[in-house]
Amino acid sequence: MYYAGVDIGGKNTKMGIVDDFGNVTSSMAYKTRMERGYDAILLEVIENIKAMCEESGIEFDELSGIGIGVPGIVNSRAGLVMSCANLNWKGVDLANDVTNLTGKACRVCNDANCAALGEQRFGSGKNFKNLVFITLGTGIGSGIILDGKLFEGLGCAGAEAGHMGIMYDGGDVCACGNRGCWESYVSASALVRQTAEAVEKNPDSLLAKICADGVSGKSAFAAAREGDATAKSVVEKYIGYVTYGIISLANVLHPQAFVLGGGISNEGADLILPIKKKLNEYIDNNGFYPYVDVVGASLGNNAGFMGAAALVM
Amino acid sequence: MYYAGVDIGGKNTKMGIVDDFGNVTSSMAYKTRMERGYDAILLEVIENIKAMCEESGIEFDELSGIGIGVPGIVNSRAGLVMSCANLNWKGVDLANDVTNLTGKACRVCNDANCAALGEQRFGSGKNFKNLVFITLGTGIGSGIILDGKLFEGLGCAGAEAGHMGIMYDGGDVCACGNRGCWESYVSASALVRQTAEAVEKNPDSLLAKICADGVSGKSAFAAAREGDATAKSVVEKYIGYVTYGIISLANVLHPQAFVLGGGISNEGADLILPIKKKLNEYIDNNGFYPYVDVVGASLGNNAGFMGAAALVM
Repeated sequence: MYYAGVDIGGKNTKMGIVDDFGNVTSSMAYKTRMERGYDAILLEVIENIKAMCEESGIEFDELSGIGIGVPGIVNSRAGLVMSCANLNWKGVDLANDVTNLTGKACRVCNDANCAALGEQRFGSGKNFKNLVFITLGTGIGSGIILDGKLFEGLGCAGAEAGHMGIMYDGGDVCACGNRGCWESYVSASALVRQTAEAVEKNPDSLLAKICADGVSGKSAFAAAREGDATAKSVVEKYIGYVTYGIISLANVLHPQAFVLGGGISNEGADLILPIKKKLNEYIDNNGFYPYVDVVGASLGNNAGFMGAAALVM
Repeated sequence: MYYAGVDIGGKNTKMGIVDDFGNVTSSMAYKTRMERGYDAILLEVIENIKAMCEESGIEFDELSGIGIGVPGIVNSRAGLVMSCANLNWKGVDLANDVTNLTGKACRVCNDANCAALGEQRFGSGKNFKNLVFITLGTGIGSGIILDGKLFEGLGCAGAEAGHMGIMYDGGDVCACGNRGCWESYVSASALVRQTAEAVEKNPDSLLAKICADGVSGKSAFAAAREGDATAKSVVEKYIGYVTYGIISLANVLHPQAFVLGGGISNEGADLILPIKKKLNEYIDNNGFYPYVDVVGASLGNNAGFMGAAALVM
């Protein structure tokens, strides 16, 4: 059977036709242009789903359902988007509107949760029934899968692991109103800031040379691979912050695995292996449970729409 | 129907006969004397269950099942106690042994999880399907109820919320191997330490007078109620630590309510109300979801065996 998955972001919309085994028979991405408003966005989504069906060589009638992820607070049982600042939507009856316009079953969910579900069904999380998915991107996204099912608490905002507090004393105040939020230490923006600070203090380092044309989330990892001590220290500290939050989540949720996505996860083994080592040393020390895996996400930008499609499978 | 619930602790064992509505028809508590070893402890538990049935005026044959909580890591599906340092048990086939000796269905679970379940079924958590139970005692215990069911991650050790890290820089190293664990700031022992430090710095305060014969977890709350500024500042800081961890848990789990138990929860509204206020101000600020309740536990020492009984209901 075939399903449409749609990942509506504040900037870009990604979508695809997905079968039960996670094969993507067609996909596309385009600018959301949220300023056009809800109706125009919705109609274009439906037109594009029809176009993708054609591209996949299936009739629109053959499509078994439509799943949609949005970056906001969703009452997923009712299919309502309660609030979505990035799209300027509030109290939108999305699932019903899609069903009325297409005759198809539709389910709606928070986008980070969709990505978590995508990785668990079709990506590097597929061996695990209990996992925590974390995106180390511009911000921190997270989603929790328990017993093979997406966990959504009251409000279905998606698990906001980025706003766990890790620095009671001396932490910066976050936009959320708390201070010392994990996100402020482990997002790509945080790593850029940490890198820039190290460059300022160590102007003669290789890291400073690599950053001469600009600092990115990749700079410190790249210079560390070349053996630069300043960069190694930035990376080590960053990994310390990431692991600190992961240990908190392991203590609360005891998952089988952590799946790391987002831009920073492209560093691969240089990021994943030290975290896995530290986490499992901690677990060994406490005899909590067996080995917990840490793996990189494998679906990239497709995770969101593939997970959205999984909502209606 | 009637069920036996047993809460085997390192020091004391509590048990009771409980019906489907949470009525306790008889109960008892005695020293566990763990040094006697597994077999003797188990036989005494069964003898005492039989005695309690008699006291309740029911035949042992009428008992529908036996639930047991132990302070350790339990494979609750298999009924195995994997490890339990307080009782010096390792790889013990508890549920099967009980069934073989009594012919009754038996389920076994971590004790903090049992207490969480007890409060959710019969205590102050009974209006909530999704809650986090936290005991502010000598240490920190916690249990999570999701969708009316006890959540047990891999390993079934119980949610170890006390080992969330809240102080990456400057936190004390915990026995678990991490530093800045929440438990180190919010346990009764931590409050005693915080109180003693304040007394040393403010020897002329009312708090110092109240503590002349010894510092307890109650001292600061008592002096604060008398208007003492030093004590108020200790209490405010303590409540800040508690709320900081609760906000982290709210971000990850989005529960409907937090239920606070343990010795410190006896402070009642002086503890609960400021936490509830801070938490809901934070939630308002972020528009995550509606109001989250914070309530004191209501079953006291009975929560563990009542929740254990609920395992077999």
